[in-house]
Amino acid sequence: MDYPNDQAPGAPVRSGIPEHGRIPKYYAVKARVSALVDESAEGDPLPTERDLALRFAVSRETVRQALRELLLEGRLRRQGRGTVVAGPKLEQPLSLASYTEGVRRQGRRPGRNLIGLDRFPCSAALAAEIGASVGEPVWHMERVLLADDERVGLESTYVTVARVPRLDADFDPDSSFYAYLRERLSIAFGDADERIETVLATPREALLIGTPPALPMLLLHRLSRDPDGSPLERVRTLYRGDRFSFTTHLGNGG
Amino acid sequence: MDYPNDQAPGAPVRSGIPEHGRIPKYYAVKARVSALVDESAEGDPLPTERDLALRFAVSRETVRQALRELLLEGRLRRQGRGTVVAGPKLEQPLSLASYTEGVRRQGRRPGRNLIGLDRFPCSAALAAEIGASVGEPVWHMERVLLADDERVGLESTYVTVARVPRLDADFDPDSSFYAYLRERLSIAFGDADERIETVLATPREALLIGTPPALPMLLLHRLSRDPDGSPLERVRTLYRGDRFSFTTHLGNGG
Repeated sequence: MDYPNDQAPGAPVRSGIPEHGRIPKYYAVKARVSALVDESAEGDPLPTERDLALRFAVSRETVRQALRELLLEGRLRRQGRGTVVAGPKLEQPLSLASYTEGVRRQGRRPGRNLIGLDRFPCSAALAAEIGASVGEPVWHMERVLLADDERVGLESTYVTVARVPRLDADFDPDSSFYAYLRERLSIAFGDADERIETVLATPREALLIGTPPALPMLLLHRLSRDPDGSPLERVRTLYRGDRFSFTTHLGNGG
Repeated sequence: MDYPNDQAPGAPVRSGIPEHGRIPKYYAVKARVSALVDESAEGDPLPTERDLALRFAVSRETVRQALRELLLEGRLRRQGRGTVVAGPKLEQPLSLASYTEGVRRQGRRPGRNLIGLDRFPCSAALAAEIGASVGEPVWHMERVLLADDERVGLESTYVTVARVPRLDADFDPDSSFYAYLRERLSIAFGDADERIETVLATPREALLIGTPPALPMLLLHRLSRDPDGSPLERVRTLYRGDRFSFTTHLGNGG
């Protein structure tokens, strides 16, 4: 089979031919389909598995393995019963701005679906993180994040009830929590520490976000403080790895 | 089977029981092994697959699927023919500091193995990124990144030959490229744009880094400029997703 052989700066070197020269068959198909995707526009339908198997003279199982990786990486997406070319990943800036602002900046409509809002006694691990006493009541708010009605992430916010006593009564869970803090409670953000890692979606998370199980996700941990340096909230946000990337600008001393 | 049911702020909610209450068998095993890992120290050996299958009364294939995910996520690692509890992920700060400095800060010894140093005519895509003319000679330097002799990443650096004419002659590829720019060529960094995403390792990358194929990786794209704002280099760094996380501090206005 013909094998594309590029040296683009953002792409894997020589499309990933191992030094020993042996390329797994599914990977050669993946590289060919990837080249096909490069020449297509967002939303273009992909030929059927059957057609691709015939075209590349491989089994349908080999085609399926290639498509599976391209789906996990967000180059393709399912649409109805077919497979289409996906758009570029959303670029979420790493900043104190909220999810809402990040998504809006890209011309998408942010939304959230409340999964649950629970009040529970603060654990020792959480107490240290949000500056609460062990056993003091804290909120856990869990929401699915949407961009243009597409489910793209899952967010858990932990904050003391003392900080936001009426969270269950006067907060619209489909709105920005940061706007609520700012506008209703006059609580501003000072600074935050973030940590990003990649994890696999749990079965529950996959179900809530509507992704295949074990899809690689980007997990963002955030600990934020108010302008006085007092801990404010602890957030755990899971973003679909096939739909998101994070951007940051680094200055000197940064 | 008993199923651990926690609500730790950094962990998936209720260990990931889907709302419909059905838990895949392998996932229940994964949660149990994960609890075992929590109680163990780094380097502790895991019971054999056979022992775990007996203990949880499941098939060895079910145990293998659970261990596969824990290996991909970096909770476990292979050692010789066995499986041991892995240490915490390395935390690499997102900053203009080099890989070298980030790894040293964590008490690890950084290292690099040169894979290749090629000179090639600049492509149109790259020209725009590094402020070169199309066809002008550029270097591509590819190195495996090491931490305490463990292979943890793969880095491709693209820079014009005009900027660093003697890269092939007077640069030690096992040393810091940023230290070389600073100390030998008096080139300082001004600022940089970074983008982080998760991708699957290609077969070649998996071979070079020594990871299982299709391990989720963290891919960092960097475009850096000198203090005058002129483009300096384009870097593509792949970090093992099971060994690395990235940290950043966000200030107001940041």
